[in-house]
Amino acid sequence: MIYRDNKAEQIKIAYIGGGSRGWAWALMSDLAVCDDLSGDVYLYDIDYESAKNNEIIGNMFNDIEDTRSKWYYHAVETAKEAYENADFVVISIQPGSFEAMASDVHTPEKYGIYQSVGDTTGPGGIVRSMRTVPMFEEIAECIKTYCPDAWVINYTNPMALCVKTLYRVFPEIKAFGCCHEVFQTQDFLREALKDICGIEVAKRRDIKINPVSVNHFTWLTGARYRNLDLFPIYRKFAEKYVAEGYTKGFDSNWRNSAFATSNRIKLDLFLRYGYIAAAGDRHLAEFCEGKWYLADPETVYEWGFALTPISWRLEDLKDRNERSRRLISGEEKLEIQTSGEDGVDQMRSLLGLDSLLTNANIPNVGQIPNLPLGAIVETNAMFHDGAITPVMAGEVPKEIYSMVSRVCAEQEELDRAIAARDVEGIFNVFANDPLVTCSRKDARELFREMVLNTKEYLGMYDLSNI
Amino acid sequence: MIYRDNKAEQIKIAYIGGGSRGWAWALMSDLAVCDDLSGDVYLYDIDYESAKNNEIIGNMFNDIEDTRSKWYYHAVETAKEAYENADFVVISIQPGSFEAMASDVHTPEKYGIYQSVGDTTGPGGIVRSMRTVPMFEEIAECIKTYCPDAWVINYTNPMALCVKTLYRVFPEIKAFGCCHEVFQTQDFLREALKDICGIEVAKRRDIKINPVSVNHFTWLTGARYRNLDLFPIYRKFAEKYVAEGYTKGFDSNWRNSAFATSNRIKLDLFLRYGYIAAAGDRHLAEFCEGKWYLADPETVYEWGFALTPISWRLEDLKDRNERSRRLISGEEKLEIQTSGEDGVDQMRSLLGLDSLLTNANIPNVGQIPNLPLGAIVETNAMFHDGAITPVMAGEVPKEIYSMVSRVCAEQEELDRAIAARDVEGIFNVFANDPLVTCSRKDARELFREMVLNTKEYLGMYDLSNI
Amino acid sequence: MIYRDNKAEQIKIAYIGGGSRGWAWALMSDLAVCDDLSGDVYLYDIDYESAKNNEIIGNMFNDIEDTRSKWYYHAVETAKEAYENADFVVISIQPGSFEAMASDVHTPEKYGIYQSVGDTTGPGGIVRSMRTVPMFEEIAECIKTYCPDAWVINYTNPMALCVKTLYRVFPEIKAFGCCHEVFQTQDFLREALKDICGIEVAKRRDIKINPVSVNHFTWLTGARYRNLDLFPIYRKFAEKYVAEGYTKGFDSNWRNSAFATSNRIKLDLFLRYGYIAAAGDRHLAEFCEGKWYLADPETVYEWGFALTPISWRLEDLKDRNERSRRLISGEEKLEIQTSGEDGVDQMRSLLGLDSLLTNANIPNVGQIPNLPLGAIVETNAMFHDGAITPVMAGEVPKEIYSMVSRVCAEQEELDRAIAARDVEGIFNVFANDPLVTCSRKDARELFREMVLNTKEYLGMYDLSNI
Amino acid sequence: MIYRDNKAEQIKIAYIGGGSRGWAWALMSDLAVCDDLSGDVYLYDIDYESAKNNEIIGNMFNDIEDTRSKWYYHAVETAKEAYENADFVVISIQPGSFEAMASDVHTPEKYGIYQSVGDTTGPGGIVRSMRTVPMFEEIAECIKTYCPDAWVINYTNPMALCVKTLYRVFPEIKAFGCCHEVFQTQDFLREALKDICGIEVAKRRDIKINPVSVNHFTWLTGARYRNLDLFPIYRKFAEKYVAEGYTKGFDSNWRNSAFATSNRIKLDLFLRYGYIAAAGDRHLAEFCEGKWYLADPETVYEWGFALTPISWRLEDLKDRNERSRRLISGEEKLEIQTSGEDGVDQMRSLLGLDSLLTNANIPNVGQIPNLPLGAIVETNAMFHDGAITPVMAGEVPKEIYSMVSRVCAEQEELDRAIAARDVEGIFNVFANDPLVTCSRKDARELFREMVLNTKEYLGMYDLSNI
Repeated sequence: MIYRDNKAEQIKIAYIGGGSRGWAWALMSDLAVCDDLSGDVYLYDIDYESAKNNEIIGNMFNDIEDTRSKWYYHAVETAKEAYENADFVVISIQPGSFEAMASDVHTPEKYGIYQSVGDTTGPGGIVRSMRTVPMFEEIAECIKTYCPDAWVINYTNPMALCVKTLYRVFPEIKAFGCCHEVFQTQDFLREALKDICGIEVAKRRDIKINPVSVNHFTWLTGARYRNLDLFPIYRKFAEKYVAEGYTKGFDSNWRNSAFATSNRIKLDLFLRYGYIAAAGDRHLAEFCEGKWYLADPETVYEWGFALTPISWRLEDLKDRNERSRRLISGEEKLEIQTSGEDGVDQMRSLLGLDSLLTNANIPNVGQIPNLPLGAIVETNAMFHDGAITPVMAGEVPKEIYSMVSRVCAEQEELDRAIAARDVEGIFNVFANDPLVTCSRKDARELFREMVLNTKEYLGMYDLSNI
Repeated sequence: MIYRDNKAEQIKIAYIGGGSRGWAWALMSDLAVCDDLSGDVYLYDIDYESAKNNEIIGNMFNDIEDTRSKWYYHAVETAKEAYENADFVVISIQPGSFEAMASDVHTPEKYGIYQSVGDTTGPGGIVRSMRTVPMFEEIAECIKTYCPDAWVINYTNPMALCVKTLYRVFPEIKAFGCCHEVFQTQDFLREALKDICGIEVAKRRDIKINPVSVNHFTWLTGARYRNLDLFPIYRKFAEKYVAEGYTKGFDSNWRNSAFATSNRIKLDLFLRYGYIAAAGDRHLAEFCEGKWYLADPETVYEWGFALTPISWRLEDLKDRNERSRRLISGEEKLEIQTSGEDGVDQMRSLLGLDSLLTNANIPNVGQIPNLPLGAIVETNAMFHDGAITPVMAGEVPKEIYSMVSRVCAEQEELDRAIAARDVEGIFNVFANDPLVTCSRKDARELFREMVLNTKEYLGMYDLSNI
Repeated sequence: MIYRDNKAEQIKIAYIGGGSRGWAWALMSDLAVCDDLSGDVYLYDIDYESAKNNEIIGNMFNDIEDTRSKWYYHAVETAKEAYENADFVVISIQPGSFEAMASDVHTPEKYGIYQSVGDTTGPGGIVRSMRTVPMFEEIAECIKTYCPDAWVINYTNPMALCVKTLYRVFPEIKAFGCCHEVFQTQDFLREALKDICGIEVAKRRDIKINPVSVNHFTWLTGARYRNLDLFPIYRKFAEKYVAEGYTKGFDSNWRNSAFATSNRIKLDLFLRYGYIAAAGDRHLAEFCEGKWYLADPETVYEWGFALTPISWRLEDLKDRNERSRRLISGEEKLEIQTSGEDGVDQMRSLLGLDSLLTNANIPNVGQIPNLPLGAIVETNAMFHDGAITPVMAGEVPKEIYSMVSRVCAEQEELDRAIAARDVEGIFNVFANDPLVTCSRKDARELFREMVLNTKEYLGMYDLSNI
Repeated sequence: MIYRDNKAEQIKIAYIGGGSRGWAWALMSDLAVCDDLSGDVYLYDIDYESAKNNEIIGNMFNDIEDTRSKWYYHAVETAKEAYENADFVVISIQPGSFEAMASDVHTPEKYGIYQSVGDTTGPGGIVRSMRTVPMFEEIAECIKTYCPDAWVINYTNPMALCVKTLYRVFPEIKAFGCCHEVFQTQDFLREALKDICGIEVAKRRDIKINPVSVNHFTWLTGARYRNLDLFPIYRKFAEKYVAEGYTKGFDSNWRNSAFATSNRIKLDLFLRYGYIAAAGDRHLAEFCEGKWYLADPETVYEWGFALTPISWRLEDLKDRNERSRRLISGEEKLEIQTSGEDGVDQMRSLLGLDSLLTNANIPNVGQIPNLPLGAIVETNAMFHDGAITPVMAGEVPKEIYSMVSRVCAEQEELDRAIAARDVEGIFNVFANDPLVTCSRKDARELFREMVLNTKEYLGMYDLSNI
């Protein structure tokens, strides 16, 4: 990488995963319209063909009129080719097949346990962690070996466990996790401000927030616009819409359309606890007691959100594959669709071309004094000139501390147990999860079944006594 | 109070509550056989007659042959008479009637929620806290006014909330909470040592332990006898007895007989988590997920412990009233029955006549670094010459941190909400309790019913929207 | 204050002090060229005439061609008129006369103690604190009474003590202290980058730094430009210039010209400790052992800096008074001279018109984990939309921890002792100061003389046993 | 080691050093009269002959009438023989010759720097650390290799650095440092209590204290006897005796006689700071500003203490050698002279035969929350059954925090610099020491001379640029 004028050129990005296309194409668009960065993207995916298709599409961006910088895409067959001397590593993998994910999400339904996402917490998130963490151990080893100075951006879930694993294996790593759930809450606050006060706010980033939390169970202890404290305004908004929900103003971005919710849970949690829950309802629900929002499909329906079935994901994947084919064949015209994500701005800021305050998932060095040091927390952090510096987010407030600290403590223990390949320790976390509302005996049966369903990914564990 | 030779004389003890007799008589026995303390005990109880009966019985101790020191008992009709210039205040109240406690314990059964004790946590403990904390606010005010330098010993449950309230209202108070659950675990460890190694240990205190916990959900991170680490020994013991339980060697002390358990939960928790759960099974079960040990009466039976019904407590009280009558009338001969408790030795140590390391419930000043400062925690503390100094207990280990920190966080929030008379805040804790396994709607109904059942004690709350 | 379009109008600023003109005129210039702020500035100074002159000059800015916003200046005779409903309070007072400051700076010379500034630490700074802190107690009371929601910017020294006092008296205050010493270090790093690498950096703010320190004894643990770590570059620069000093490239701004130094101390401290000392040499020297840089005038000369005599300040004041006269009479044409300070940008950011990461002096809430909570520390902080959020600066490194923590601890104790009017406690800090190299008996004589010299300002202390 | 009845037998103690005899003989006496311990002591000293003489004398104890247990002494020629499978390791070495110590203590006098001891802090202590720490690195390696489970008791100075080194090299070590300075303060408080109140206290341990400090600059934040707070009593005592000193009641124990002081510094520090300085005046003086108590021999004389010259130590050693000869030859009759030290009771408690609360030097795990974690601090700790558990000592009070935290921070940095063999880092600590009152240039000359004087012990450092 070199600087020329006020641009950074010859950047090497290693893109790990991405075969599922969505995130990859969004990043391609964002890079294409960024006029002060250029270079090469190396695509590495277990499914080489997917990477190859992405290479073709990626390079097609160079021919679009609106493109402002050149990026050259290269599908590679070995991890080494991707990682070697990379300036940035972007990780967006699918840990295991959708069949595995189907087991994560749907097996618990036999015991009356419903999950709206199943990729972060709950029985699904825990079993997914068992197969994802060892993959991230490998990724961390690659980074340590081939590009120890690279900045590493993770988009994979379970976010906290993935980032934790990177730091556990290679403590000097410069990694962080990105998640757009908080951004949507900023947009939601713009809606509230418009609805209650008639004030139009131009951009999401104009809403200043203070996240104090763990990923996907994110809470804001402050939200401001100019000299306005948004909490009383949001209270009025919540009281107005909690019963019926509020759905206006949300984009129909491919990533979200099937996931749309009425935001009732977000509003309900605010009215109950006094702090702004700042993730999508489908995520928030999974961190609460199982009987609250996810008791059964009727309850889910009442609360105005959806259980995302794996069948939908499979269908969606088919659509994207089909679209990939059309784009490559020229049947569909490739267009730039920027993502609204922070990824490219984060890169620009880390290279010193800008400064950015945004939320990031990084180890706690004291930014949240009442969560354990070293746990992966989500707070604001300053990105600038080769450094990510978290701001002092402050303590998790008493009202929500028992919930947030429990989540964080379970992630810490899950990390310990997975690192030690301690299957009984993992089960203890599983049995203690608030979604696991069945008896302990049933919990054991369920765990056993879920683990055995996905055992092709779990060869590193001794499963003989499971 | 004065010192003469190596004795402390003219001590004034205010005994608050105690009408229920058990604890009072035990303390009387302990004082009677302690040869370096003497003085007066002022008995104050809402039920003056009970206090009066205790006065008579207390003074009868002076005539027993084995008595080694004189103590004069005085039932008083006003709090002031008891507290004024007291050297020690002993608090052992029954917060509300047994009818109220019956509501705490049995109302949740309608929703399939079973409680083995119902005085510390769970729906029962939470509603009990609502009426107990305001009583302790009054007690703290009395101490602040009449005897700010007194040492205050609390035996009332919910222990942590009661002690927290004393410190909240009067931060300079010299208060601590005592609980014998840990002592029984020391005895249990003696049993294990005898059973597995054939080593007989003379006294409970010879087993050295490190409690790192909150009251009634007590855990030991260390247990030693001489140069032996007891953990591997206890593991063998647990493996041997977890399936069938172990019941030998427990005393038939009045306080425990009806509460006897097979200790299966204690052993199960050790085998699962690797640290020694150090309270009675009836208490431990209430802090775990509701479906584990308290799912239904059959599960309780399987795990070898009992739900203590309030009918038993009423019967037991009748027995004690009857015994009180017999003792006063001379039908039954009064005998010294020492309690095995630490109360009198704590007094002696605080007066500088001895030194004692024992477990105590006091505010966290850092003795458990990963629990909130100011929370009431149970660890060892040194009692000597006018000071209680906690030892550095160390961190709650990762394996049990999610459970212990959740309990502690909920107590902190319950304290905040009760102090603020924030009924919705209290309900949030209630709805989040692991025993409250019903839907949130049912949780609301249950809370409402339990609160209204006991509303005669809850005049300080606005219950109009409950 | 109201928002119109993207501007904040009708802002009320209370300017406390400023009779000494320099800071006041600089702020007037900065406000005049800021096109999105406008309003009124209320000038309150003990010397009303000075305020009146500033009023005249301030209003003259509205007639200058380059002025981009209107500000109306009002000299007021009572504090209340200035503070009432202010949106911002700017404090820039001279605590006591220059005669008093002459005693602070020059009396110690009798005992061989030389001070280059004498307003922050050392014997001068300590005695100055004795009279300044009570003034700030009054200011804090005014803010609490008349404008509790105002943002308060302090420029007065001793910075840390002044800010500490504001928070001690009114804990909810929204105050911070600003100091430009760090800015000059950013400029110095630009020089180093040009000198060693030939890289020209356009603006001071392009150099990203991490201050971890207390005011005037500021240290950077990180300094970066784009992807460059500036530490190895600065090492080369320091080795090149430490012997002779480096003086190029510094502005001839009125505030600095008489204070120019060769920067040898800055370079020496970097080479010795490995971290970048980030204040002017005159300040840095005063925090080190007295025999290092301030042993005697010859040593000072050798190290290439100057003792700033009060005679210079008197002369300088005369010049400014004269200039004030000339400006008012029209003999000298008023011109806009922006300051390079952050004050106006801080205001804009706090009003949500911008975002700014800059260094600020605020209470430690954990941003420096190994300095006491509540101590006033200087680190980066994010200014945006009604909030100042410090970033996690990290620990003071071991190499400089004994020096920095000592300074911080002495400020904490000085705050305690002054608040308690504990003259002996103040003397203990005085006697322990590294500049006080004389015997304790001489230290006592010196303290006595300095206190008595300025006793007209010290009526709140009992000086009978001094 | 085995237990038989209530005794521990076949204990193996490795005694490292001790050729200087004093400590060794004291321990021999203490062991001889302890009736529940017996076993073997392996004596290892660089000077084998000294060890051999100690072996002879040690075994002679078995024939004394008052001896209550048998201990067999063995001088060994290799470290391995001593350490292998030891239950306890006692370290009491003389790091380097008395000639080296003479350089430590007397070389600084050329620059007007006087030291009363010179073995812990100041120029002498720092240069002594340079040669001692590498010796302790070796000792730690031996323990790690030959007896990782042994309890390790250190008596060597600089205490904090020695213990720190043991933990740095072998973090799992079970080591602590013992120092009797605090015991003498307990005796001094008995004197105060007798003098002011006429109360006779039987034993040192009856005075309960709370040390919050670093070794030799020890401070008590609490001191109690029964229900008495000793602070107001000690204040009267200090006011009575500060001018003239107090010397009554001190033993004429060999270790102290030449070191007797008037205790004026101890009393002066109490009156100035409000907390009880709890080490001998000779040590306390060395941690204060050089001009306070150690400005010159006259000042020392005025303050009523002595500079202990190395000539005295040489003379004293000669006496002890001579006495050794006489004891071996039978000219002098060997008698039991117990030491008043805690060493043997610590062993008994660690073996579970007793419980002991006493002061110990161990790593800070939070017992002093405002000193760095991992620093070696001196507080009370509970010794019992295979564990040393520090009590929560609490924060160092503000009044003395700048002094105590500076000492602690310098020890931490000295540890880092010595471990890294970073001579310039060591010099930075040296130049910053409050006793080093000379100019930096002189400080450099002095450091150079002291290092070169002792370079035969400093082969592990690169001294080429010194």
